[in-house]
Amino acid sequence: MKTFEDLRHLVEDEFNNLDLPKQPNNLYAPIKYALTQGGKRMRPVLTLMACNIFSDNIEPAIKPALGLEIFHNFTLLHDDIMDCSDLRRGHPTVHSKWNNNIAILAGDAMAFVAMQYVAAAPQNVAQQVCDIFNRTALEVCEGQQFDMDFETSNNVHEKDYINMIRLKTAVLPAACLKIGALIGGANEEQAQHLYNLGINIGLAFQLQDDYLDVFSTPDVLGKPIGGDIVENKKTFLLIKTLGKLDVIQRNDLLKYLADKTVERYEKVSYVTDIYSRMKVADDCSKKIEKYFAAAYNELSAIDVDNSRLEMLRAFMDKIANRKK
Amino acid sequence: MKTFEDLRHLVEDEFNNLDLPKQPNNLYAPIKYALTQGGKRMRPVLTLMACNIFSDNIEPAIKPALGLEIFHNFTLLHDDIMDCSDLRRGHPTVHSKWNNNIAILAGDAMAFVAMQYVAAAPQNVAQQVCDIFNRTALEVCEGQQFDMDFETSNNVHEKDYINMIRLKTAVLPAACLKIGALIGGANEEQAQHLYNLGINIGLAFQLQDDYLDVFSTPDVLGKPIGGDIVENKKTFLLIKTLGKLDVIQRNDLLKYLADKTVERYEKVSYVTDIYSRMKVADDCSKKIEKYFAAAYNELSAIDVDNSRLEMLRAFMDKIANRKK
Repeated sequence: MKTFEDLRHLVEDEFNNLDLPKQPNNLYAPIKYALTQGGKRMRPVLTLMACNIFSDNIEPAIKPALGLEIFHNFTLLHDDIMDCSDLRRGHPTVHSKWNNNIAILAGDAMAFVAMQYVAAAPQNVAQQVCDIFNRTALEVCEGQQFDMDFETSNNVHEKDYINMIRLKTAVLPAACLKIGALIGGANEEQAQHLYNLGINIGLAFQLQDDYLDVFSTPDVLGKPIGGDIVENKKTFLLIKTLGKLDVIQRNDLLKYLADKTVERYEKVSYVTDIYSRMKVADDCSKKIEKYFAAAYNELSAIDVDNSRLEMLRAFMDKIANRKK
Repeated sequence: MKTFEDLRHLVEDEFNNLDLPKQPNNLYAPIKYALTQGGKRMRPVLTLMACNIFSDNIEPAIKPALGLEIFHNFTLLHDDIMDCSDLRRGHPTVHSKWNNNIAILAGDAMAFVAMQYVAAAPQNVAQQVCDIFNRTALEVCEGQQFDMDFETSNNVHEKDYINMIRLKTAVLPAACLKIGALIGGANEEQAQHLYNLGINIGLAFQLQDDYLDVFSTPDVLGKPIGGDIVENKKTFLLIKTLGKLDVIQRNDLLKYLADKTVERYEKVSYVTDIYSRMKVADDCSKKIEKYFAAAYNELSAIDVDNSRLEMLRAFMDKIANRKK
């Protein structure tokens, strides 16, 4: 069995030696740049991990794993244009290093490069793998649009938010796990357990982000607390709070959030105080626990020797206990 | 055998009844809009036409044909953002009717919808069809980048220009013909003849555009003459002319083209005059004839009863004789 770091280094080496055309340079240089700025490589590692659960030979899963990471980086590249973000992982984003048109087109090309890599899955599962990939890619676009819609809406319900983060962040790791499993020889039922596991981990992970942004400490988090509050981000905590307030309190909070004159420290402590009174931290923790419990249930339903699940279980434990 | 109009109406009906999800509306409404603004539907019709050459049953080619048109409209949607074009076929473009972010994301989603439709090709050819589609899609992105690069370069050679229009405009109709042929049951060799035919028609078609923009008449063309000259577009005529001029004449022309004070009528007649002296109209016509000759050669190499080639031949004749 490979370790998580083994797989991550394997992925990193593949990207450093990626065989892309040279011309046109203004198309392929930004792609090469976008794919070699680091990142956790979570998705391709999950793909290889899932393959490794069912097979000692992960080689057939490598190209599809890279394809899934290329797709992920394509979404980041276009998201950065939409959000006007000039930095990503401490480096200039493609649209700020080059320009918007080059960034749009480089992203488009990455989507088709991703497809080519995913389509390199073994014959016997290629069509099923491509179907999962295409459906997932479309779902990620849906999630991004819901996210953009929610920014300007004060009437987002909890179930809409959960559905949005499922689409925007959970379906891709879930697809990575299922695709890796199928390439490793898992049957549809076993692979589906890994898909469901991925959905639950993905949902829990996003809710952890929402929680830690407010209820961690700067030294542990490694950045100032309350970034989401300052940006008026529609997190689980805010949506849940707005749902619990009566109409007057609700409008007061919305008016307060819209006030640009409030300075950061006051805004963060004011909103955090409301969160505490509304007990939404508990609501959030309970939901996180619920999703992790469901994920561990899926894990135990996978019918292989326990030793083969060690790495994935360790990975889940690490996320379940993360403090940043 | 179906007629061209039969196939076009079939495609139009399919798009008017396209089964797309409803939510998020800000993702799917722009897609629906982009796909129902008319257009010649050349690419899906070519796909069905090619299938019909080898089989009386074109039904299996319909979804891939739609996928290829969805892909084409995705490229138009993103090109319109890059070119800041507010109108397309007389209607507001998606980014001007909605906004840039919605247009970027709707285009991204269309790329994956296109893939799903193309992947619906019959089992026995699905993988080959998807490979052709992915490679072609990437080539179209390369062509678009070369085109953007050429806008700011005064050193574009004829062979670079031909390669650019091959990628940007010829490979897609060629892929449509090959994919349709394969679905119709053609072998690789027969399908490749149709691909090559498509490349040659595509190149000839683009050179006809360059030629007619200058050497037609407003009443025949249905729009003012010299639009490309006014926009300083790097057409075959301009590139060929710059290649024939000596250094001094070359720089004089480039300086003249860069002068924004020259009014339209003077600029068009001045540049047209140089084109005539450099005899680039003949060069262009000769190239167009050469590509059509090559296309008819490929047609005659297709090993089916002549009657099955009637519609494609009629289509080629129509393009060969077009005056607008």
